[in-house]
Amino acid sequence: MRATVMYRAGDVRIENVPDPRLVEPSDAVVRVSRACICGSDLWPYNLMEPGEPPRRMGHEAIGVVEAVGSGVRIVKIGDVVVMPFAFSDGTCVFCHEGLYTSCVHGGFFGTVKVPGAQAEAVRIPLADGTLFVLPVGEDDALMASLLTLSDVMGTGHHAARTARVDRGKTVVVIGDGAVGLCGVIAARRLGAEQIVLLGRHPDRIALAKAFGTTDVVSERGEEAVERVRKLTSGLGAHSVLECVGTEQAILTAIGITRAGGAVGRVGVPHYPAIPASEPAFYNNVTISGGPAPVRAYIEELLPDVLEGRIEPGRVLDRVIGLDKVPDGYRAMNERQAIKVMVKP
Amino acid sequence: MRATVMYRAGDVRIENVPDPRLVEPSDAVVRVSRACICGSDLWPYNLMEPGEPPRRMGHEAIGVVEAVGSGVRIVKIGDVVVMPFAFSDGTCVFCHEGLYTSCVHGGFFGTVKVPGAQAEAVRIPLADGTLFVLPVGEDDALMASLLTLSDVMGTGHHAARTARVDRGKTVVVIGDGAVGLCGVIAARRLGAEQIVLLGRHPDRIALAKAFGTTDVVSERGEEAVERVRKLTSGLGAHSVLECVGTEQAILTAIGITRAGGAVGRVGVPHYPAIPASEPAFYNNVTISGGPAPVRAYIEELLPDVLEGRIEPGRVLDRVIGLDKVPDGYRAMNERQAIKVMVKP
Repeated sequence: MRATVMYRAGDVRIENVPDPRLVEPSDAVVRVSRACICGSDLWPYNLMEPGEPPRRMGHEAIGVVEAVGSGVRIVKIGDVVVMPFAFSDGTCVFCHEGLYTSCVHGGFFGTVKVPGAQAEAVRIPLADGTLFVLPVGEDDALMASLLTLSDVMGTGHHAARTARVDRGKTVVVIGDGAVGLCGVIAARRLGAEQIVLLGRHPDRIALAKAFGTTDVVSERGEEAVERVRKLTSGLGAHSVLECVGTEQAILTAIGITRAGGAVGRVGVPHYPAIPASEPAFYNNVTISGGPAPVRAYIEELLPDVLEGRIEPGRVLDRVIGLDKVPDGYRAMNERQAIKVMVKP
Repeated sequence: MRATVMYRAGDVRIENVPDPRLVEPSDAVVRVSRACICGSDLWPYNLMEPGEPPRRMGHEAIGVVEAVGSGVRIVKIGDVVVMPFAFSDGTCVFCHEGLYTSCVHGGFFGTVKVPGAQAEAVRIPLADGTLFVLPVGEDDALMASLLTLSDVMGTGHHAARTARVDRGKTVVVIGDGAVGLCGVIAARRLGAEQIVLLGRHPDRIALAKAFGTTDVVSERGEEAVERVRKLTSGLGAHSVLECVGTEQAILTAIGITRAGGAVGRVGVPHYPAIPASEPAFYNNVTISGGPAPVRAYIEELLPDVLEGRIEPGRVLDRVIGLDKVPDGYRAMNERQAIKVMVKP
């Protein structure tokens, strides 16, 4: 089959690789109906060094189950399923608590060890604990929005939850990428009153406004902090969703959080440290977040997607075939596309 | 009157200073019945540089109101009151939310600008928003425990709350000082099932056990992390109360927090930064805490003190007169006393 392989920064290829097959009794093989390219895929696309082992990319997909191992009890051949970006056994202490990304037997797709989903098919370890069976056909009109449940919508929701978004709160979303935009949807859905987006791309800002953004700040750093303070009566925001992962983003996040408020960070941190005392400690700012246990959120978010109350699929503004995946990476890296959907 | 003045590291003196007087209409003057020396007073006692402006020390007291300004409406002459370590107007947006330490007109006692309570008397700015009137006489047998409501018991409680201690949880308290010991009381009070103390002083450990500690770890650093993991089925603790403020303490705190758990830090940070990604981010560890809004907690904690269900006053293991305050600093600094109570 054809699959996406990253060799080093800027060098991503479609190659012929062996078809995936069942290895463990708990495995399934899923034929990929839709996959995506993720903002987090751009980190290796920009930083991967020559000599690092190649990676079979892709951690978001919807597909149809083609084969199941002898130990699989829940998932059936023919099921249309969401593949969350992390696999999980569904039975350990953390899975029982809904923290699937800390599963004691779990891991992540699209890593050196576990091939990813930007491919014609993908092996799913721990299929029963990982896959979520959808009540739709594989060409449903809502496919794009359903696909975001595998990562970006759940991740935006995690940012909102860990930043303690609630009815009537003031929220800032840092980052106008797909996760930030889904963070806006999540904040609105949880009842935020004011939603300030920090972003500077007109097409993304337009979408953010459609999703419920009330104010836009295009400055960065200290100027952004000043502007947000002005927009929030000098107090800062109750909840800040950090959806970027750079040092500037986290410093801005802490700087604009209201005393007693919270930062929910979901951008993979590409910064070494968070300042210990000023302003986080003295303002009693809570810093929370991490890899989103999106598997736990599908049940909550799915009805809103199926009934059209939220439309996170609008962040997928380009659709390509598998052969065009290298172009898709380029388009996202050059900010010509917000997020690219792949139809293998 | 006599008061405590810190000039530089190791140089703390009792001096004659002008009596405090009403300056603003919202002021009160309180004659100090009991004050204390705080673990946080040891930071300047060890680190204050020659040439820094002198500080009138002390931020914890119970006393009797001797005078009130023309704008004071609630507090009356003769009232026995707790003075929380921060003053606050009681009316701003943060005070209304219970975050008194972020009061927009507030500040801290025992700083360069605001004289402290290790003295015969103390001026209280914003008296109505700051002081909490006690339903006892000034020589009540519970005076020691009541005095801890001005800081250490409320601070231990804040550590527990921000670390999300709850019924049945596994808790680690880092630090066997007065705040750590009060953290044990708070964790027990909130229903923690297992309470592990990280400490190494036999007298403090004995008290911690009396307060509800179930396990003691005397190792530090990586060894402490290992030991706590063993004590918690390899998982780490749901809630970690960081009651020290050193780099080793915060690194240990994050290292022993269970995935999805929380660190409540109340030790004034004497470290520059918190590592951004491993292990906090990948484990979805929440880092919270800051200066405790102890004023907000008095109402909750007071009945338990008055009815003897908690005895935080036991951390005050030495009582001295004002003239002996320099000896009191020395005793605490050399870990000969847990916490020193001053009867002026």
